[in-house]
Amino acid sequence: MKLVTFQPRRGGAPSFGVARDDGIVDLGADWPDVGGVRGLIERNLLAEAAARAKDRPASHALADVTLLPPIPVPGKILCVGRNYMDHVAELGDKPRGHPSIFIRLTNTLVGHEGQLVRPKVSDNFDFEGELLLVIGKHGRHIKPEDALDHIAGYACFNDASVRNYQFEHCLIVGKNFHATGGFGPWIVTADEVGDPRELTLETRLNGQRVQHSTVDKLIWDIPTLINYLSTITPLEPGDVIATGTPEGVGYSRKPQLWMKPGDTIEVDISRIGVLRHTIVDEAA
Amino acid sequence: MKLVTFQPRRGGAPSFGVARDDGIVDLGADWPDVGGVRGLIERNLLAEAAARAKDRPASHALADVTLLPPIPVPGKILCVGRNYMDHVAELGDKPRGHPSIFIRLTNTLVGHEGQLVRPKVSDNFDFEGELLLVIGKHGRHIKPEDALDHIAGYACFNDASVRNYQFEHCLIVGKNFHATGGFGPWIVTADEVGDPRELTLETRLNGQRVQHSTVDKLIWDIPTLINYLSTITPLEPGDVIATGTPEGVGYSRKPQLWMKPGDTIEVDISRIGVLRHTIVDEAA
Repeated sequence: MKLVTFQPRRGGAPSFGVARDDGIVDLGADWPDVGGVRGLIERNLLAEAAARAKDRPASHALADVTLLPPIPVPGKILCVGRNYMDHVAELGDKPRGHPSIFIRLTNTLVGHEGQLVRPKVSDNFDFEGELLLVIGKHGRHIKPEDALDHIAGYACFNDASVRNYQFEHCLIVGKNFHATGGFGPWIVTADEVGDPRELTLETRLNGQRVQHSTVDKLIWDIPTLINYLSTITPLEPGDVIATGTPEGVGYSRKPQLWMKPGDTIEVDISRIGVLRHTIVDEAA
Repeated sequence: MKLVTFQPRRGGAPSFGVARDDGIVDLGADWPDVGGVRGLIERNLLAEAAARAKDRPASHALADVTLLPPIPVPGKILCVGRNYMDHVAELGDKPRGHPSIFIRLTNTLVGHEGQLVRPKVSDNFDFEGELLLVIGKHGRHIKPEDALDHIAGYACFNDASVRNYQFEHCLIVGKNFHATGGFGPWIVTADEVGDPRELTLETRLNGQRVQHSTVDKLIWDIPTLINYLSTITPLEPGDVIATGTPEGVGYSRKPQLWMKPGDTIEVDISRIGVLRHTIVDEAA
């Protein structure tokens, strides 16, 4: 099942539901007070949502809605840096003894087909295609062997980064410029994804492949990340974890390759889908 | 005016209102749907709140409520590190060319007289008394000369830090263990605080002074911080910014001084009040 949050293009309030090949089944009227996709996950309603969507016609064509971030306001956006060996190497670094973690603000998120914003103050605007996981149930000190049971689903993420701020100021500001975190197009539930190590991730800039990896190359694998992060803080339904990017980022190329206004950037993950954005300049 | 969010000890839902010497005036029934203190700020209702509270008797004695973080779920918790010269020096560092910024998760917040939690995985639990400011209105690229107009009020903050994770893993995890961010006891509105540079900050561990500074010693002053942060991201009503801690932290002492279960830690800022917590161990 593909969980979506969307805005009908003809107007009306944002809603949520299930995306299928023939369109979107709107479930907003079924659970008006649940709190959207995050609420479905929190209240363990995913099986019921699938059952209700199964026998209904699509209520909207995909072309008639704007997809929003599948969870517009996650409780936590936890991100992992330097988590593929070839990416660590292209940054001139060596693996460390622990995961590298940072946090994003919720206002960085941008849904599928939206606009990632290159800020006024920098032209060092880089892509980072990543697999994002969505937590499905509460846990603290989650054992690695139990970790996959805590995952509700997966999505694509573009951890777009303002490199001069990241490296010359501090990591957290380079990762938190407004409207720089692509999230979507939907959350594919874990039952449809199976073993996340089998996924293949590709990033394309204007149609040209710039990153390509299998997710089994993560240095800190998903069970280890969930164990580590849940040592720090309780993980809750709807929290999201971006697992890191593989090699190929623009910063490490010669010459360096930055995203510019008018560019199209795509993160394509097998079994999940393609997350696409255009690049625009921050409004004057 | 002192804005509070509170839980009546006899039961009932959390509410919000104004703290006075004679107790708390509950304003929850005046604005049941406004979204608490954050909503009062967003909707520019502070003057109206003051007017309504003025002529009413207190509805609760202070002893009859549990104070919660004045804004339990801020949109952003932005924090500044290494922002007093003597603290930079005690860390063996030199000033940098830009502010050092990190982010806290909302679940780190703990209200006045609550419990800061020393995690299972570390005994390096340190205090950091700080002045926190609360944003009052939207802004991006806020000019330093306009910055004070964007502040709704001030509070005390204890940026309690798990030092071995901070320095041996990464900053963001050392600052984001669950229930390590003391915030309160209330927000004092900017009109009652006046010039924040005139404030004096003191931290006391079990009654002994461990930090003491005037806020005019900030390396990056409040207008500069608001200007810098609003370059990265829009600042919104109810966002909070913790401005950094002065020298005296336990990490830099010889021998090092850590907070232990049973300890009392206080952050006392002139014109604002005293924020007090006890230290407990994470539950087994």
